[in-house]
Amino acid sequence: MRAVIMHAPGDVRVEEIPDASVIEPTDAVIRPAAVCVCGSDLWPYRGIEALHGPTAMGHEYVGVVEQVGAEVRDIAVGDWVVGSFVASDNTCEICQAGYQSRCVHQVMMGSVGTQSELVRIPLADGTLVKTPGVPEADLIPSLLAASDVLGTGWFAAVAAEAGPGRTVAVVGDGAVGLLGILAARELGAERIIAMSRHADRQALAREFGATDIVEERGDAGVARVKELTGGLGAHSTIEAVGTDEAMQQAIGLTRPGGHVGFVGVSHDVQIDGLGLFFSSVHLHGGPAPVRRFLPDLIDRIWRREIDPGRVFDLTLPLEEAAEAYAAMDERRATKVLLTP
Amino acid sequence: MRAVIMHAPGDVRVEEIPDASVIEPTDAVIRPAAVCVCGSDLWPYRGIEALHGPTAMGHEYVGVVEQVGAEVRDIAVGDWVVGSFVASDNTCEICQAGYQSRCVHQVMMGSVGTQSELVRIPLADGTLVKTPGVPEADLIPSLLAASDVLGTGWFAAVAAEAGPGRTVAVVGDGAVGLLGILAARELGAERIIAMSRHADRQALAREFGATDIVEERGDAGVARVKELTGGLGAHSTIEAVGTDEAMQQAIGLTRPGGHVGFVGVSHDVQIDGLGLFFSSVHLHGGPAPVRRFLPDLIDRIWRREIDPGRVFDLTLPLEEAAEAYAAMDERRATKVLLTP
Repeated sequence: MRAVIMHAPGDVRVEEIPDASVIEPTDAVIRPAAVCVCGSDLWPYRGIEALHGPTAMGHEYVGVVEQVGAEVRDIAVGDWVVGSFVASDNTCEICQAGYQSRCVHQVMMGSVGTQSELVRIPLADGTLVKTPGVPEADLIPSLLAASDVLGTGWFAAVAAEAGPGRTVAVVGDGAVGLLGILAARELGAERIIAMSRHADRQALAREFGATDIVEERGDAGVARVKELTGGLGAHSTIEAVGTDEAMQQAIGLTRPGGHVGFVGVSHDVQIDGLGLFFSSVHLHGGPAPVRRFLPDLIDRIWRREIDPGRVFDLTLPLEEAAEAYAAMDERRATKVLLTP
Repeated sequence: MRAVIMHAPGDVRVEEIPDASVIEPTDAVIRPAAVCVCGSDLWPYRGIEALHGPTAMGHEYVGVVEQVGAEVRDIAVGDWVVGSFVASDNTCEICQAGYQSRCVHQVMMGSVGTQSELVRIPLADGTLVKTPGVPEADLIPSLLAASDVLGTGWFAAVAAEAGPGRTVAVVGDGAVGLLGILAARELGAERIIAMSRHADRQALAREFGATDIVEERGDAGVARVKELTGGLGAHSTIEAVGTDEAMQQAIGLTRPGGHVGFVGVSHDVQIDGLGLFFSSVHLHGGPAPVRRFLPDLIDRIWRREIDPGRVFDLTLPLEEAAEAYAAMDERRATKVLLTP
């Protein structure tokens, strides 16, 4: 099968590798209808995260089940499915508490690779969620978004306790931040402040529900949000970047007793204990338990209540994966969908 | 009036200073029935926190109102009252959300000093809570504990979401940690793991509700708690020390999706962002909004349901404050009550 392999920073190739197949009896193999490139795929692409030899890339996927292992009970060949970027049994105590991204049997799909013509899905019964039927073509980008960026933005909004009467600030205007805005709106937030300097992303932020745009960053961004909130700060803040500056900004602009939901994979973030102590905020985040939210998200997409697929602003065939990575790296695209 | 003044690390004296009096029309002046020395008073005593000249000490107090300012409405001369270590208006948006320790008009009582014969209480209507009457003498230590250490341990247990079905771990066996154990028991926790190496404190921990004692610290302490919790970690963890080691231990021994409530004033704590990200815990703490809990705590003490005053293991007259500080510094006492 054809698959996207990263050989070195900036060196992405599409190559022939052996077909994915059932290895464990709890595995399924799916044929993805669409996959995509994630912001986090850019860390190794830019040489910020180390690569250990040629690496199969990707962790997002939607598609049709082609094979199932002997112990798979709830998923059958021919099912149309969506799964999270973390495979989970969905039965352990941690999964049952809603933290499937930290399942005691978790498998990171990034370690399997999904940017390919076939994908092995571990723990298929726990991981995969069936759609109500075969989706119309225009729903596929939104279902694909549910696999990670929508589910992650949604978790961030839930972790930040976005809801009625709340002012929500969103640090980061990538796909996750933009979908955090959409989630905050769906959860009933009264006011949503998007922190963004890019006109195209500001426009999409407004479409997704942002009521205010703040272009300032760092201390100036904190001051501006306080100014907009009677000097108190936001009730709820989504941190969707992962840098130290973004985290400090998120904590700084949240009022005492408020909530910060952070989902940007942390890079060189150091949180000063005394500063956090006197901030009096709640801090919660990590790899999003997307599986917790998938049934609800699929339902909202199926009913066409939300259109998260709009974060994809470029679609390319899998063979042009190199160009997909380059376009995101150079910020020519927010997020690229690949059709295998 | 007589008051405790710290002149330098290790140099605590009782001296004559001008009587406390009403300055702002929202002030009251109380005559404390009892005051005490806090673990946090030991930081300057040990030279770890800087002193800026001779400093009036203390921030805990219970007693009788002697004077009120012209704008005080709800508190009257002769009332028996308990207040928090932070004066607050109890009406601003932050107070109304339950974070009176971060009131927009907050006054830290430590900046006023309460270890004296009279104490000025700013924002008296918001700060002071009346007891149902004149307390019997044996209730006074418990009411005094409510002013800080009980309220702080209670907040830590609430921040850690201690409750039915939960396993709660408590890092720190000082007065706050011990009362965090009592709070967790009152909130219905199923199992309470006290982390302590001192036999006398272990005994009090068990009286307050601890079901397990762990003597190991650091990585060994984390491993032991995981062993006691099926490999998963505690649901809820109270951090009541404030050192980097204690914070790392608290985060490390909490399960994904669990809650850490931290109330030890942070000293040199640095939290690694990536470690926190992959811990998937909730982190919340800071100066405890004791005022939120005072009516309930006074009620439980008045009904003799709880006996938090047991953390005082030494009582001295105010004149012997120097010995009180020395006894706590040398760990000859957990907490010392002073009678003015």
